[in-house]
Amino acid sequence: MDIATEVRTKGRQAREAARLLANLGTGQKNEALLSMARALEEEKDFILAANARDMAAGQEKGLSRALLDRLLLNEKRIQDMAAGLRELAALPDPIGQVTSMWTRPNGLQIGRMRVPLGVIGIIYEARPNVTVDAAGLCLKTGNAVILRGGSEAFNSNRALTQVISRAATAAGAPTGVIQLIETTEREAVNLLLRANEYLDVLIPRGGAGLIRAVVQNATVPVIETGVGNCHVYVDAEADLAMAQRIVINAKTQRPGVCNAMETLLVHEKVAPAFLPPLAAALKEKGVTVRGCERTREFIPWAEAATEEDWATEYLDLILAIRVVDSFAAALEHIHTYGTKHSEAIVTENYQRAREFLARVDAAAVYVNASTRFTDGYEFGFGAEIGISTQKLHARGPMGPEQLTTFKYIIFGSGQIRQ
Amino acid sequence: MDIATEVRTKGRQAREAARLLANLGTGQKNEALLSMARALEEEKDFILAANARDMAAGQEKGLSRALLDRLLLNEKRIQDMAAGLRELAALPDPIGQVTSMWTRPNGLQIGRMRVPLGVIGIIYEARPNVTVDAAGLCLKTGNAVILRGGSEAFNSNRALTQVISRAATAAGAPTGVIQLIETTEREAVNLLLRANEYLDVLIPRGGAGLIRAVVQNATVPVIETGVGNCHVYVDAEADLAMAQRIVINAKTQRPGVCNAMETLLVHEKVAPAFLPPLAAALKEKGVTVRGCERTREFIPWAEAATEEDWATEYLDLILAIRVVDSFAAALEHIHTYGTKHSEAIVTENYQRAREFLARVDAAAVYVNASTRFTDGYEFGFGAEIGISTQKLHARGPMGPEQLTTFKYIIFGSGQIRQ
Repeated sequence: MDIATEVRTKGRQAREAARLLANLGTGQKNEALLSMARALEEEKDFILAANARDMAAGQEKGLSRALLDRLLLNEKRIQDMAAGLRELAALPDPIGQVTSMWTRPNGLQIGRMRVPLGVIGIIYEARPNVTVDAAGLCLKTGNAVILRGGSEAFNSNRALTQVISRAATAAGAPTGVIQLIETTEREAVNLLLRANEYLDVLIPRGGAGLIRAVVQNATVPVIETGVGNCHVYVDAEADLAMAQRIVINAKTQRPGVCNAMETLLVHEKVAPAFLPPLAAALKEKGVTVRGCERTREFIPWAEAATEEDWATEYLDLILAIRVVDSFAAALEHIHTYGTKHSEAIVTENYQRAREFLARVDAAAVYVNASTRFTDGYEFGFGAEIGISTQKLHARGPMGPEQLTTFKYIIFGSGQIRQ
Repeated sequence: MDIATEVRTKGRQAREAARLLANLGTGQKNEALLSMARALEEEKDFILAANARDMAAGQEKGLSRALLDRLLLNEKRIQDMAAGLRELAALPDPIGQVTSMWTRPNGLQIGRMRVPLGVIGIIYEARPNVTVDAAGLCLKTGNAVILRGGSEAFNSNRALTQVISRAATAAGAPTGVIQLIETTEREAVNLLLRANEYLDVLIPRGGAGLIRAVVQNATVPVIETGVGNCHVYVDAEADLAMAQRIVINAKTQRPGVCNAMETLLVHEKVAPAFLPPLAAALKEKGVTVRGCERTREFIPWAEAATEEDWATEYLDLILAIRVVDSFAAALEHIHTYGTKHSEAIVTENYQRAREFLARVDAAAVYVNASTRFTDGYEFGFGAEIGISTQKLHARGPMGPEQLTTFKYIIFGSGQIRQ
């Protein structure tokens, strides 16, 4: 089967499956999720054997330790994926919810009802767990899915989708709701980007390069995820002990993710009291500091920050620090360098807390909390398929509701338009 | 100024204006709208003179009567535009609404607040009223706008935007919230399609060709509007008098718009009683009928419908009619040929009414009412900028709320992630 034929065939199957899935009851969808969870556990040897082939090839290819760790499956990770599917089954079903209903003067009763998007395409890197998480969340929300994972995880992804799609169908889900593009050539991605006939939306998950390429070339609507150049601003009236806890948490609790802080802004009034003890705590955690000139007065071991540092998402134990002379300068810095992901102020001042919330344009704006909370689970959505950094349709953590659209259902009694 | 410089300059101005506008109070925005309405009335001679130049050029160019009618401004139409702006001022402001708020077990209080999208690009044909309607609705919802109207309306659009943007600024709106791309060359559109730095969303309004070109070439997120191949299905248990009223209304009340019916589906059981009197009524309204073979048994003067007719959006006094042998066949026809815009069933059967609402995938699904109600005003939104035919972000009539996004505002007391 050539690549174009594969995309077209799987696209059609997914489209047809989506139509049936849209009207499957909540109970049946949950049965399918539970069946998928059981199958992962029962067929773990088959899955681990496939993963071992990917790991061997990856080692031979010289993949970095971080990449190999993402690629690795073991019993514990399979258990986690199964547990994730069971959690999904326990969540409320957003499909069919009528979120509002009103009656017009002419008697027309208009309701807004949540329905699935249809077919969702997901392009991601070599992380086999995404295969199961994404397929489960799409099924929960009544969407068929076309998956295209990184080629290094080819065998793992194929084994996983075989196991879970067989299990879903056995439990009554339509055949073809979970599709995996098996060709590892780049051309498959190009075809997906323009498969408007088969895909209602594309969600790229991965590095900045992948996402840029998708946005630049897709004709299918895209939900952008990913880049987070997040800031914490420590105000002149901050509780400095709280500020230190938040800064350390936002930088070091998990530095490699998009909601980690990358630049700290400190009001000049509190810099002398705040920075020296913070510096000691950062050093203890192994954080490299790149500071502006005034920062380096208080942290002599900090490297000199350049313009580029303000714009960089390190995703690492590196922190840029800038001392600002006003609240307005902090807002301006965030406006200039921020990526509208997650931004926090630490302050005890009522007025500035309100202004920060109002003026900062980002998916999540915090007062007195770590930016690390921008996450579907932490927000209470029960699941997450990524964090949208765009403004259209979904913004911030994407849970089940963000994978739905709506239709208007209109109850008349013979109304015609005058 | 070359084209690229114009787009870049106006894009930057709009971006900067949007930032200020996002935090303008409701009262100030409404003042600006009222000021714009007054200015239109006061400077009507200036506007009409500009329009007269477009009309003369259009006549010379041999534009069709329909196009010239769209292009024409007169005192009444200027009054209507002013009235539209005053109605916008009277509508509630969606910006700043917190649509939900909840508290997490760790005490974080998370709210979802409506905020403007930012800068909206609108590409449209030679209809000067769109210039004012779109600028007003964007201002109401806190968005800056970059307008690119059809070249035939160049002088009218320039005069209108001069008048309204001067009036908006005089009433306290930021300079640059309303931008008009003045070059009439196509290249300007191409530049807008890829102006991701300046535009948060593009809304093309116009014919199928324009919309296709935008979807195929834009890297800026697009909201598709327009195509509506809408159906009315007359069920075996329909009230036939009601069905006839609805069919005549959906086809003839205003045939040139996207929510008009294009194909009528009739259950075979009622075809003999329903079609002959309907045919007489259609004839009286000057409607041409293209029917399937069975339709032509009852309407001998109908032309023979071809496969192409089922897929055609006539936007004219032409109706395709097909007799179907079951409810399922009607659903299948709509699934195959529909464009997911507006679909109606006429029935007295409870179960089939419910099934139609559940199974038909369209922006608006009706029981016992005309498809012509798919409209922002008829839905009670108070304004409209088009009807979205896509599933992402906005579906169906786009009122003020559809021109907004949201951000999460999070109130903490020092929370850090474990």
